[in-house]
Amino acid sequence: MRPLTVQGRPIAGGRLPAVCVPLVARTAQALLAEAAAAALQGPDLLEWRVDFFEGIGRTDEVVALAAQLRAAAGGLPLLFTRRSSREGGQPIPLDEPQVLALYQAICQARSADLVDVEIEADPAHVAAVREATRAAGITLVLSFHDFQRTPPASELLERFRRAHRLGADVGKVAVMPQSRADVLALLQATWEASQALPIAVAGMSMGALGAVSRVVGGEFGSALTFGAGQAASAPGQLPVADLRAALAVLRSASGAS
Amino acid sequence: MRPLTVQGRPIAGGRLPAVCVPLVARTAQALLAEAAAAALQGPDLLEWRVDFFEGIGRTDEVVALAAQLRAAAGGLPLLFTRRSSREGGQPIPLDEPQVLALYQAICQARSADLVDVEIEADPAHVAAVREATRAAGITLVLSFHDFQRTPPASELLERFRRAHRLGADVGKVAVMPQSRADVLALLQATWEASQALPIAVAGMSMGALGAVSRVVGGEFGSALTFGAGQAASAPGQLPVADLRAALAVLRSASGAS
Repeated sequence: MRPLTVQGRPIAGGRLPAVCVPLVARTAQALLAEAAAAALQGPDLLEWRVDFFEGIGRTDEVVALAAQLRAAAGGLPLLFTRRSSREGGQPIPLDEPQVLALYQAICQARSADLVDVEIEADPAHVAAVREATRAAGITLVLSFHDFQRTPPASELLERFRRAHRLGADVGKVAVMPQSRADVLALLQATWEASQALPIAVAGMSMGALGAVSRVVGGEFGSALTFGAGQAASAPGQLPVADLRAALAVLRSASGAS
Repeated sequence: MRPLTVQGRPIAGGRLPAVCVPLVARTAQALLAEAAAAALQGPDLLEWRVDFFEGIGRTDEVVALAAQLRAAAGGLPLLFTRRSSREGGQPIPLDEPQVLALYQAICQARSADLVDVEIEADPAHVAAVREATRAAGITLVLSFHDFQRTPPASELLERFRRAHRLGADVGKVAVMPQSRADVLALLQATWEASQALPIAVAGMSMGALGAVSRVVGGEFGSALTFGAGQAASAPGQLPVADLRAALAVLRSASGAS
């Protein structure tokens, strides 16, 4: 079970899971306010979901704003994510080569600490981001999302393995359950991946049915969980304070006899 | 997913899991104080682990004390349990026919609302208790414990099925995990049993490793969880207040979108 690392150093005191709050505002001003408010809730990192940002087409502004968001959050590590519309993100006015160029600019300026790219992106695109993150010492999250269903545990494990093969520092899988058995399948695959792979992994089962996974995932090897700040970025995210309270109970229980 | 019932009525508002606090004091005076203190923590029922009671050999006293404990706890339902030393209980000066006679006396006096007998007890003993509980309208829990290991999920499911075949109103399985995978196996079997059987089921993975199951078991069909009052009766039990706090978070999350 590996914790999330930034610049090679574990965050959240090396404990699983690190708690991340997504930033989903549309304007720079609203994002700065959202980052400052999120920081007060005590997360371990923030994720900027840049596909929500109205200025995503202005590269220099995005790069500068990323650094400002980190500063507004008191220096919390920042995860930079353009979620594709195919995997649940917002439609944006950039094509994929432009998205790649944006990631490369972010990496070169080191204005984020981690970046997220989808496993199913063009392999050349993934490789180029991998090269940019390595050069800049940025943590690469390779992710997979399915908002409709939960593939069998064996397929989920294969997604984690693919993230590792593609050079991820963190493999992330977020899927929608249709039954409680699907929630257990996600936890099982996350646990197996955390044992089998030399990278950090993050697994989450979405929606109300899967919300329990956001609390207990860390017990089964998940290095990262998302809690809602001003707004959730995916279904089933709990308010950060609630998430923290439940994690504290589990932590004390795991330390008990 | 069936809730725990007493006299045919669901307890804990029909929600899963009902929270039970064990009473483990050795004297009548200490037990009455323990019951009153436990009731203040807001459990849904109490379990009297009568194998801890120094007066277990005096049937009339046990029967009267059971009723007094229920009264001391403001009328909370009382689960009456003699745990055998083979399954983690205390040594007692009664032989099995004497234990059966004690259960029959408790049922006849209706001084408990539920009673727990082990699945692996003598089948004639189980049948006799079954008859006594049916005659008295008392809920029968048939239980299995393994303090060393967790059998495979298929075997755990078979224990639940056996509890049902033997006439249980509630099938309970409590096992010790040696890995996180064992915790998932217990949750999986509990979930499958809750779907497959027409009775309430309760599943718990013990110790620090399994403590998470005491919080999330209800999400996977477990109708009953144990939280420590003055003292725990099995390894991994959380303080009731902590357990309640974590359950409240999960409940709000399950109601979220």
